[in-house]
Amino acid sequence: MQTRQVDIAIIGAGTAGMTAYRAAREYTDSILVIEAGVYGTTCARVGCMPSKLLIAAAETSHLIDSAGIFGIDVADKRIDGRRVMERVKTERDRFVGFVERAIENWPQGHKLRGKAVFTDPHTLEVDGHTRIQAGRIIIAAGSRPAVPPPWLELGDRLLVNDDVFGWETLPRSIAVVGTGVIGMELGQALARLGVKTHLLGIGSRFGPITDPVINGEAQDFLSGELDLHGDASVERVERTESGVALSFVEAGGSGCLEVDYLLAATGRRSNLGALNLEAAGVALDATGNPIFSLDSGQIGNSHIFIAGDVSNAHPLLHEAADDGRIAGDNAGRYPDIRVRPRRTPLSVVFTDPQIMLAGKTHAQLLQDKVDFAIGESSFEDQGRSRVIGRNRGRIRVYGDQHSGQFLGAEMVGPAAEHIGHLLSWSVQHGLTVQQMLDSPFYHPVIEEGVRTALRRLSRELRMGPAPMENCLDCGPGA
Amino acid sequence: MQTRQVDIAIIGAGTAGMTAYRAAREYTDSILVIEAGVYGTTCARVGCMPSKLLIAAAETSHLIDSAGIFGIDVADKRIDGRRVMERVKTERDRFVGFVERAIENWPQGHKLRGKAVFTDPHTLEVDGHTRIQAGRIIIAAGSRPAVPPPWLELGDRLLVNDDVFGWETLPRSIAVVGTGVIGMELGQALARLGVKTHLLGIGSRFGPITDPVINGEAQDFLSGELDLHGDASVERVERTESGVALSFVEAGGSGCLEVDYLLAATGRRSNLGALNLEAAGVALDATGNPIFSLDSGQIGNSHIFIAGDVSNAHPLLHEAADDGRIAGDNAGRYPDIRVRPRRTPLSVVFTDPQIMLAGKTHAQLLQDKVDFAIGESSFEDQGRSRVIGRNRGRIRVYGDQHSGQFLGAEMVGPAAEHIGHLLSWSVQHGLTVQQMLDSPFYHPVIEEGVRTALRRLSRELRMGPAPMENCLDCGPGA
Repeated sequence: MQTRQVDIAIIGAGTAGMTAYRAAREYTDSILVIEAGVYGTTCARVGCMPSKLLIAAAETSHLIDSAGIFGIDVADKRIDGRRVMERVKTERDRFVGFVERAIENWPQGHKLRGKAVFTDPHTLEVDGHTRIQAGRIIIAAGSRPAVPPPWLELGDRLLVNDDVFGWETLPRSIAVVGTGVIGMELGQALARLGVKTHLLGIGSRFGPITDPVINGEAQDFLSGELDLHGDASVERVERTESGVALSFVEAGGSGCLEVDYLLAATGRRSNLGALNLEAAGVALDATGNPIFSLDSGQIGNSHIFIAGDVSNAHPLLHEAADDGRIAGDNAGRYPDIRVRPRRTPLSVVFTDPQIMLAGKTHAQLLQDKVDFAIGESSFEDQGRSRVIGRNRGRIRVYGDQHSGQFLGAEMVGPAAEHIGHLLSWSVQHGLTVQQMLDSPFYHPVIEEGVRTALRRLSRELRMGPAPMENCLDCGPGA
Repeated sequence: MQTRQVDIAIIGAGTAGMTAYRAAREYTDSILVIEAGVYGTTCARVGCMPSKLLIAAAETSHLIDSAGIFGIDVADKRIDGRRVMERVKTERDRFVGFVERAIENWPQGHKLRGKAVFTDPHTLEVDGHTRIQAGRIIIAAGSRPAVPPPWLELGDRLLVNDDVFGWETLPRSIAVVGTGVIGMELGQALARLGVKTHLLGIGSRFGPITDPVINGEAQDFLSGELDLHGDASVERVERTESGVALSFVEAGGSGCLEVDYLLAATGRRSNLGALNLEAAGVALDATGNPIFSLDSGQIGNSHIFIAGDVSNAHPLLHEAADDGRIAGDNAGRYPDIRVRPRRTPLSVVFTDPQIMLAGKTHAQLLQDKVDFAIGESSFEDQGRSRVIGRNRGRIRVYGDQHSGQFLGAEMVGPAAEHIGHLLSWSVQHGLTVQQMLDSPFYHPVIEEGVRTALRRLSRELRMGPAPMENCLDCGPGA
């Protein structure tokens, strides 16, 4: 077995591993990135990018179906599943290509292929062929779809999101199990592309939403478009001649489905388990996860860092990239660790209408016993949303009763990906509700619906709106 | 002639007049709003709302035409001009109805119909039937389309934007003269709705754009969709049997057009001239416009205030509403005038791609001799824009060389209405470029294209990016 000594070893060449590499290289050239799978990130290969490509086709199809309200008639719409998937894959490959080329440009000596496992706190063994002794180690090993083991007997009729993006064409029918981000996004997109789609979840909880009012909005729009069973327990799945038979139990009774495929969108699992972390000598919590700081990436006080989906902290690309930058920088400067500011939380689900959470969630505010008020507004009669025929959804905004500060929001509605930026930036920069109301709102825009919610929030705040002397947006009837 | 004495008279019941009324009523019930035309605002009747409704239909038609790239085939698209216009008018009438009902709810004694003219600084005469003696007067008389007088001979073949929204159906062809906001929005929308459209401008200047690079982007996308003559001088217009003949001269030579209609989008003119302002005894500038403060609405030190489009200051609904609130409040508290903060400037043009200006414009920065740097980014290869097939346009962001503060931006590109809010709020709250880069950017979103421009701006700033200790978004290759 070959032995190599490096300053820094990075396990995983995904988003977190890549940003960690770039940050660490500022400190040393003695560095090695170990990748167990293929190059290309989860985001580019099977996550953000291909899902958004599929959704773009689905939204186009949906817009064509609703063209009639604008006075435009379409006699014959045909979804060419082969071409839909061709674009998804071609564009996906282009995004993956960018990642591959970035890694190609790394010095050959900085890369190693194979599965790394800890043998002691400073030593990794890779596929039995290489022993690596590293001053610091960054764990950025990513995650994989989690599938209930009994379903594996379905063979090629059991899919995870990765498989969808390998399709030659679209199937006729599918049961999507899981109402998290992936289940909702893919379920709605497939339904809009003409695939007979059943979506099953547990507890009628949708994606990252925590506000019960907003959760209800998500349930409403999904159930209008596909066969939704929001709180169903899957009892049995079976391979049939033509596909899959699935039976489930829900409050109203029980049901069974015959579909071409079952798509398991039942969450993702950290790849931590495969690293023999016990040999690393770091502190683990009751569930076997390492105890680490989100602000430094450091596990305990050790020379080992963790970044990206592998940590289970926040499976979002932009957070993984920050994780990597922070961990890579701290691995470089170790033992002189620096704590980094984190960005204000922002989550987006690219359904239609979109879902967005910015800042503190409703659940966090309750859990932290914050004294907060809520402002709410529907998009149903919101001017701009109605003009473009996208007047669905609702927003709830949260403000601090003592300081008047804006705390966060949850939303189902049009352009939520953009509203999410406006609102998370407002939280990050410590704006009060009144400062937001004094900011520009164009006309006619969807942001005016947000303003309505903020005005209602402002009236709910016990401190009351600022006197007219100090603000522009607090006249009567404003 | 009847004589009435009131504390406050407001000339005009449009957007500015209505907000002025609401603010002034906080101080007095002795108030009268005089409207010369029909109730309902410029915005709702002939401006923002109906134009956005027409654009919504046009964008739908355009999306159908580009469905092929997503793998969706549409055999037969038919634009039913009658139904297109029906939706525009029905929804427009709904918006107008909200305005009308708001005014219906005002006490009858607060309203008067007719044309008001000054007879002395405290007296207005309305259509010769009523003399009003007012303690304070707010001028919110609005504006009207300006048309070159020789064109009037075209009779019903000469249109202004108001007329478009009265159409029963769509014409076959049109010449739109003027490349301001109205000309661009209506010109592109009509072209996309199958109307053979010619768009003629002067000096190849497009809407409010001042940055020459962004102006070039606007020229590019418009010339790809319709017959654009960006710098043409209209020589002669003539009524023909079937419509209008128009001849023009431009750099390349001369041309002539035969069209059903000529739409004059040649700017708007203040209604100030009809008020006999000379009798009001206020200071006028060289062009006959009153000298007033944007921050108080007050003309000189007088008891007369001005608000909305009539002032020529900024013909935008949200500014008119603020004008009215400020003028109404100050008329109420006169002579104790309060200066109000104004919102950061924001302009949006609802073409596709959209156009946006936030904060200081390129021209203002040059004029004010600000020491600023520019960051630029194209949307052509921007991930999210490409995914949704809207990868056109460019953004330029401006930052202060001394403070690192973000100053403003001009943009042609996707979702500019939303980016405009994010960036104008950033200016309003005094963010530095680095603070913006440290804010959340989701993935994949159009805002990442803005981040690219901000990163480039950050590198151009002589003060340089903040050291890694203070920021998240300044790693190598970030």
